[in-house]
Amino acid sequence: MEKKMLFPKTGGLLHGGDYNPEQWLDRPDILEEDVRLMKKAGVNSVSMGIFSWSVYEPAEGDYHFDWLERIMDRLYENGIYTVLATPSGARPAWLDAAYPEAMRVSSRGVRDRHGNRHNHCMTSPVYRRKTEQINRRLAERFGSHPGLILWHISNEYGGECYCPLCAKRFQQYLADKFDHDIEKLNKAWWTVFWSHRYNSFDQIEPPYENGERSVMGLNLEWKRFTTWNTTDFMKAEIAVLKEITPDIPVTTNFMTLYDGLDYRRMAPELDVISWDSYPSFHNDGEPFFETMAENAFHHSVMRSMKKDKPFMLMESAPGLVNWQAFNKLKRPGVHKLACLQAVASGSDTVQYFQWRKSRGSAEQFHGAVVDHRGTEDTRVFREVAQVGEMLQKLRPVAGTTVKARTAILFDWDNRWAIQGMQGLGRETKRYEETCMGIWKEFLKMGVEMDVTAPDQDLSDYDVVIAPMLYMLKSETAANLRAFVEGGGQLLATYLTGYVDQDQLCFLGGFPGDGLAELFGVISEEIDTLYPSDRNHIRFEDGREWEVRDYAEVLQVQDARVLASYTEDFYQGMAAVTCKETGKGKAYYVAARTAPGQMAWLFEQMLKEAGISIRQLPAGVEYHVRSGEEGTYEFYLNHNTHPVKVENVQGPDLESGAVVQGDLELAGLCTAVIRLQGTD
Amino acid sequence: MEKKMLFPKTGGLLHGGDYNPEQWLDRPDILEEDVRLMKKAGVNSVSMGIFSWSVYEPAEGDYHFDWLERIMDRLYENGIYTVLATPSGARPAWLDAAYPEAMRVSSRGVRDRHGNRHNHCMTSPVYRRKTEQINRRLAERFGSHPGLILWHISNEYGGECYCPLCAKRFQQYLADKFDHDIEKLNKAWWTVFWSHRYNSFDQIEPPYENGERSVMGLNLEWKRFTTWNTTDFMKAEIAVLKEITPDIPVTTNFMTLYDGLDYRRMAPELDVISWDSYPSFHNDGEPFFETMAENAFHHSVMRSMKKDKPFMLMESAPGLVNWQAFNKLKRPGVHKLACLQAVASGSDTVQYFQWRKSRGSAEQFHGAVVDHRGTEDTRVFREVAQVGEMLQKLRPVAGTTVKARTAILFDWDNRWAIQGMQGLGRETKRYEETCMGIWKEFLKMGVEMDVTAPDQDLSDYDVVIAPMLYMLKSETAANLRAFVEGGGQLLATYLTGYVDQDQLCFLGGFPGDGLAELFGVISEEIDTLYPSDRNHIRFEDGREWEVRDYAEVLQVQDARVLASYTEDFYQGMAAVTCKETGKGKAYYVAARTAPGQMAWLFEQMLKEAGISIRQLPAGVEYHVRSGEEGTYEFYLNHNTHPVKVENVQGPDLESGAVVQGDLELAGLCTAVIRLQGTD
Amino acid sequence: MEKKMLFPKTGGLLHGGDYNPEQWLDRPDILEEDVRLMKKAGVNSVSMGIFSWSVYEPAEGDYHFDWLERIMDRLYENGIYTVLATPSGARPAWLDAAYPEAMRVSSRGVRDRHGNRHNHCMTSPVYRRKTEQINRRLAERFGSHPGLILWHISNEYGGECYCPLCAKRFQQYLADKFDHDIEKLNKAWWTVFWSHRYNSFDQIEPPYENGERSVMGLNLEWKRFTTWNTTDFMKAEIAVLKEITPDIPVTTNFMTLYDGLDYRRMAPELDVISWDSYPSFHNDGEPFFETMAENAFHHSVMRSMKKDKPFMLMESAPGLVNWQAFNKLKRPGVHKLACLQAVASGSDTVQYFQWRKSRGSAEQFHGAVVDHRGTEDTRVFREVAQVGEMLQKLRPVAGTTVKARTAILFDWDNRWAIQGMQGLGRETKRYEETCMGIWKEFLKMGVEMDVTAPDQDLSDYDVVIAPMLYMLKSETAANLRAFVEGGGQLLATYLTGYVDQDQLCFLGGFPGDGLAELFGVISEEIDTLYPSDRNHIRFEDGREWEVRDYAEVLQVQDARVLASYTEDFYQGMAAVTCKETGKGKAYYVAARTAPGQMAWLFEQMLKEAGISIRQLPAGVEYHVRSGEEGTYEFYLNHNTHPVKVENVQGPDLESGAVVQGDLELAGLCTAVIRLQGTD
Repeated sequence: MEKKMLFPKTGGLLHGGDYNPEQWLDRPDILEEDVRLMKKAGVNSVSMGIFSWSVYEPAEGDYHFDWLERIMDRLYENGIYTVLATPSGARPAWLDAAYPEAMRVSSRGVRDRHGNRHNHCMTSPVYRRKTEQINRRLAERFGSHPGLILWHISNEYGGECYCPLCAKRFQQYLADKFDHDIEKLNKAWWTVFWSHRYNSFDQIEPPYENGERSVMGLNLEWKRFTTWNTTDFMKAEIAVLKEITPDIPVTTNFMTLYDGLDYRRMAPELDVISWDSYPSFHNDGEPFFETMAENAFHHSVMRSMKKDKPFMLMESAPGLVNWQAFNKLKRPGVHKLACLQAVASGSDTVQYFQWRKSRGSAEQFHGAVVDHRGTEDTRVFREVAQVGEMLQKLRPVAGTTVKARTAILFDWDNRWAIQGMQGLGRETKRYEETCMGIWKEFLKMGVEMDVTAPDQDLSDYDVVIAPMLYMLKSETAANLRAFVEGGGQLLATYLTGYVDQDQLCFLGGFPGDGLAELFGVISEEIDTLYPSDRNHIRFEDGREWEVRDYAEVLQVQDARVLASYTEDFYQGMAAVTCKETGKGKAYYVAARTAPGQMAWLFEQMLKEAGISIRQLPAGVEYHVRSGEEGTYEFYLNHNTHPVKVENVQGPDLESGAVVQGDLELAGLCTAVIRLQGTD
Repeated sequence: MEKKMLFPKTGGLLHGGDYNPEQWLDRPDILEEDVRLMKKAGVNSVSMGIFSWSVYEPAEGDYHFDWLERIMDRLYENGIYTVLATPSGARPAWLDAAYPEAMRVSSRGVRDRHGNRHNHCMTSPVYRRKTEQINRRLAERFGSHPGLILWHISNEYGGECYCPLCAKRFQQYLADKFDHDIEKLNKAWWTVFWSHRYNSFDQIEPPYENGERSVMGLNLEWKRFTTWNTTDFMKAEIAVLKEITPDIPVTTNFMTLYDGLDYRRMAPELDVISWDSYPSFHNDGEPFFETMAENAFHHSVMRSMKKDKPFMLMESAPGLVNWQAFNKLKRPGVHKLACLQAVASGSDTVQYFQWRKSRGSAEQFHGAVVDHRGTEDTRVFREVAQVGEMLQKLRPVAGTTVKARTAILFDWDNRWAIQGMQGLGRETKRYEETCMGIWKEFLKMGVEMDVTAPDQDLSDYDVVIAPMLYMLKSETAANLRAFVEGGGQLLATYLTGYVDQDQLCFLGGFPGDGLAELFGVISEEIDTLYPSDRNHIRFEDGREWEVRDYAEVLQVQDARVLASYTEDFYQGMAAVTCKETGKGKAYYVAARTAPGQMAWLFEQMLKEAGISIRQLPAGVEYHVRSGEEGTYEFYLNHNTHPVKVENVQGPDLESGAVVQGDLELAGLCTAVIRLQGTD
Repeated sequence: MEKKMLFPKTGGLLHGGDYNPEQWLDRPDILEEDVRLMKKAGVNSVSMGIFSWSVYEPAEGDYHFDWLERIMDRLYENGIYTVLATPSGARPAWLDAAYPEAMRVSSRGVRDRHGNRHNHCMTSPVYRRKTEQINRRLAERFGSHPGLILWHISNEYGGECYCPLCAKRFQQYLADKFDHDIEKLNKAWWTVFWSHRYNSFDQIEPPYENGERSVMGLNLEWKRFTTWNTTDFMKAEIAVLKEITPDIPVTTNFMTLYDGLDYRRMAPELDVISWDSYPSFHNDGEPFFETMAENAFHHSVMRSMKKDKPFMLMESAPGLVNWQAFNKLKRPGVHKLACLQAVASGSDTVQYFQWRKSRGSAEQFHGAVVDHRGTEDTRVFREVAQVGEMLQKLRPVAGTTVKARTAILFDWDNRWAIQGMQGLGRETKRYEETCMGIWKEFLKMGVEMDVTAPDQDLSDYDVVIAPMLYMLKSETAANLRAFVEGGGQLLATYLTGYVDQDQLCFLGGFPGDGLAELFGVISEEIDTLYPSDRNHIRFEDGREWEVRDYAEVLQVQDARVLASYTEDFYQGMAAVTCKETGKGKAYYVAARTAPGQMAWLFEQMLKEAGISIRQLPAGVEYHVRSGEEGTYEFYLNHNTHPVKVENVQGPDLESGAVVQGDLELAGLCTAVIRLQGTD
């Protein structure tokens, strides 16, 4: 088990968060009070330096690191470890003044002025050099500090740059991709349409707002390039750190399903996955459980990028945030619930933005462990301290992981292609929502489900759901076929297999690339419904699903028809089919229905795969982590009323009590049960 | 009759659409299959070359036309004629790279980058020269090809350019218009207001977003200039074709009531009017009949631009489109219904965008006769083939026209003036909607109604409706007066005669320019109602109309009061009046009501004019086409249920059956009856 | 009393408005008719020259003033005085052509092109010089004209400029403000956050759209700078006039609560306050009385800027305006009601935009006394003439003022800080609405209430309401403490005292700067509710208030708890408290409730302060003006039905009748009662 524990030095789970002592260098009393309060709150780590460049290097080449060393020392003496960031997320004013090329150019073709953050050009050689310099200094100075446990690369990478350097780099990227043959690109992008043929790569510009926006291949490759270029920048940041501190792991903090970067392309460069979680708790658009389940989905997205080890919850808010449309207080108990959800989902850390509120500027009202008042006598501080205590008791869990036998396919390329395709309903494509909705149904059944890519190895899974798999990249169809032939149960939906990786339509009938044979159906037409339109699907046993948004008209080849439409001109035609191939089955659901209605079909698939469903009261979330040393069940009651879960056996790590049969959970309360016979 | 038939070579009606073989030059099997399928679908024409510039001329001066010749030959051998386009709608990449002046400058003053389509500068001498060159080559190469029947000039002209060349040309246009006397312009634009006096024409700029937007004369003249300049560009395109192929007619494809161009200024330069029709079938905002009636209105707009000959439906979608908010499938039968509606309205063609779907790029999911699947085994293909059969049977109709004794006045200048005027309710002006609403009431009564301009010859008409005729250009008031004096029945509404052609208010009372005398009323004030406000108008017989949006307070001079307001401070004051002048009558309706409520008044006017109303079941559309050779009645049932129309006599061209008395029409079905005694 | 009368020459109240004879110089008949009509309408003043620059100086240095002199003479001969404007509001075309620096640069960094109005750079030395030149010429030519009674400086100052000159001036402004010490600024703006430290003042840019928008100190100082720079420009305009015509008073016309300028910084430079009032009469979003009460609030804002003298209603619309979303006609009687409201609120003038409608351009449909028709036979003209008669009868009122013993604190800096703060609910901050809502409750009680600034002398007041006093500038807390200690009753709400004048949070607990002691409470957390969320506050007597939007969680120190929350996790905790200090009381209301619910608490405070509440029928507005010569009560019935007001004694200035006990007011009617024993 030792091997999988992320931070062996700490002996367990991390508890801490962003800490900005540079804001209080003239207040040593406050810095000293911070140490006292951290210990009181059970904090064993802080993340520092994320926005410290202008303090490290107030003028070019004038470095100041002593202050940080003093603080790292003092913290280490008190058992508090340091996650140290590279400061590239925000540039000092002098840097932009001296090197304007570091500032991005917007899609309008206008260079940004100095300001804000997270907005540097990823191509700029100067900025790469300045970043390399400061990273090197940091690594040299702090690389062997005993308190240092992790490098935090930059902060929440994102955005695009349309500067001439990026435009040039984009052309090079394309030339490489298309073998320096412009006709290959012309064919892939179908530029003969609307007379868009390029004569050479240097005629191609990024999709400026006042430029080319109608070539779909261009739009998609620009997104791929942005991921590639950002990853390349990140690799350059990492390289210098690995050179000096090869044993210190690196991460960068992701942001849920951030649209601008295909995180799966970045993940291989990182030692551990970490992310920032900011649900809109208690919002008025959905029940509380849905908000928590959505957050659980995001945890699963992160966990699935490195399945064999724990991930990190790098940021979360104690109290509230200040940038949502309505910044409501988290109700008592919810903080602990959300922290335990992270651990239950496979995180070995609970970290916050932020330790102490900034006195001024944009995030002065963002929640923190310590308020402007500066005291421990607040509800938020007390709840954080309780989490600190809880995490101490959960130390055995560190290093264990979540194992899933089911997966849902979610893919950034597919998402971008669906967004960019011209057709369907502009407001009703909802790819992410559809994937998440289905995932939640598995959560409700207590079945662990990974979120993975269509071209990943699927051999760990028995059931795979592939919603709206519009784009089939070159390996995908074969991968799915092999999965089914090998005994897997696969379910695909309307909008499967329309285009290839360049977004060219498959000829000969959808789903393309051989999937029409796998599913035994051809989709002749797809009907886009207006929001008030409805149809229904009826199964042989009379069961009905309501159809919204999309309904494909199928020509059934050799599939079995499980259900048919009940209305409109395709009344009586197939809507749900199944075809057996090899040892497996391929289901096709031709229309959109509420995920909750599909749950019954998912249950059939699970039963057939021999995956057991955990009977849970509504509103209860369930996870299992396991490792060499033991297996732990997590129960989270998202209701405000008490519930009873049946068939629970074992000691509760928090209370120490042994549960035998019925687990009683008060409103918003949790339990972590160590399964017997696993130690 | 021969003379009026648009394409005598074809012996009847055109059936076909846009065809892009340049996308499949590497797939001769597909090109060959196209010919087979076209014949199967009853297609006798294709439109080619619309976006082929980069294939015709892949590098400057390097021309390639052989491929097109081969295809035109092969099609001609198979009885399929060619509509050939000039390719100016989309520029090759090399052209923009070499001649940036061809790219437009936006209203922000920023030049576009290369991309998209329909976006060249209309002034650029270089682009005019390059267009002339390619057009000349095309005409020289294909002008005498026996398959060529029509020139399709560019594609869907539109948009504006704010480049320095256009700005300069605008100044010249203004100097010419105002006799090179800046004081004439100052007076016409009332520039003394807000100190906007110009010293010279070269101080005047187009209405840039960050420039002058408050001079209404400037705003209006910019729109007029854009029409003038676009027409001038189009004339230059046509000139070279007429020089080489004087006998090949020319058209350009219009887009319903496109706001940016006054199509009536362009129409005289064309031999035949054509347009592109893309209704939002089955949308959730209105009943299906309303959608179809709106489309019929647009047909009438086009038909009325050249009343003495048929027009062309240049584009329509087989199946669906891909660019609406919701791209719903056309239900079975609707395709044929819409095609016949075009013919019934006076079109001699049924053409599609497009024959075969593009494999990639922006319109890859736009409906086409042939799908990506590439087969005839689709619902869409079958419905198109049925239309092909129908059009064969309707050959006798070719060359006949629709004759109307009623007209509604719709005018682009008036529309622009109403849009630009500061006052009333920002969201409730609804000029187009108001005109269309009234036109539909005449359609429901089975009465043909032209859509014409206020300064056109009105002598063909007995009843003229002039809604919201805010701007009276110099001839309009006299034209209306002469119409009434000559025995016409004229109905005008609130907002009549406020401003002259320069948008200067008439002094001395509205409606101005003598119309107060014609109607016998002065409009003292116009009340703008909030959306929830209501008033009513009561006639002497107790009949009531509900008032929304606008209500004028009249001072009645010598008109007869037909109805008065029932509420508010103008309760009891005149709301509908009539004054007899010469042999005619002038009605004034001072407030806005739903058009359906006004139908009763329209009926009175029709009766008095001796125009018979066709009794039709609700949801049935009726038209008559006639020519030397015969008269044809068209019945279209837009209901999904069957209806019976009484008093129909004659053979049905489609079925061959002879109707005697009751015509039974199944849901979404049609009939074309040849009136007896007309052959 | 003579001393306080604004325009002794006129012997009473001004009646008139904007007059643009330069639009009709070629129509002497119309100019002559204007004089006749003005006399008929009881007009004794006009405002001229507001947009006359291009007529004064059609080419640079070529001045033409004779036309104006002729008109001023003719008007003066007929008893009509002139308010003369400086013409800087709109620049001639030649000026922008010759001096582009006069044109503003937008927040995008792009220079405007010539056009529109109210858009010159406030910094431009050239424009200041050109303005000084034309102002000097005007003063020299007309300064001693006997008809001249007031300078109208420019027109509706507003907007911002981001040009290099303004950017430089902003840097100088900041350097002056922060003692040329960049570290003082860094500390005040907390630039260490997100690494925003500046090295020098010349690194600081205005908050361009594509620049720095995340430094809240920068955003706030930019607004303060814009006020400072505009005031500086205005002072330059005034200086030349005062040099030549020291005895002619100056004003500039304000626009209600215009967000872009802190009018209280401009007021000291003016001799008299004037403003432009354009309520949305009869809108569908609120009852008519609410619209009128909102207008009364704005009158109070203006009145309170110079409490010791009357103010001016510089512009209002006869009839209607043309720029609102719906431009509805004012119903009969409303014009007079609104005019008397101004006088009742302390205005000594009733002035219009405009006398005669412009024939063309952007405001050709804006209401005017004289319509395009050019006749006195209109409802609007008759209503204006009635106001003229009324104002004659109200001459004794001239020079008296309104005295208030209550005040509400409204502050531009606080408003900007609340807008700019990141947190709470984006759409629900509603500072202005909250202040106005509370003010209206005092109006309904017939209690005069000033609208003043938190740092003003509060010694005239017995009751002060301080809603949402988020920002405490350096003097404010002390001022409030002194007010309470001196016997005042103070009521503050949620969001009090979070930040100082630089927007740095107070450490040690909110409300800061000692106010936690004054109120006896600390606000631990503020909960932002979603729009559908509700809570309640219950008082000891069972009375309940409904809570929306915001609810603070208080820690009560030594205040008395008057009411507590009834729901959610802060159920039972204090929501309304009171603490006595010195001779006064400090109330704290921790949550937002509808102002009408708070009225009961306001009554308690008024009773305790010995301020009597005037019992009024619903919908009746009441004011008192008094001076050495007499005291006048104003009653305005905003209902369309008649009402009876009890306990009224004295002669009605309009009718001459003496009221004894019951005052009967017809719908939309008014009375002005001279209190007995006051002459």
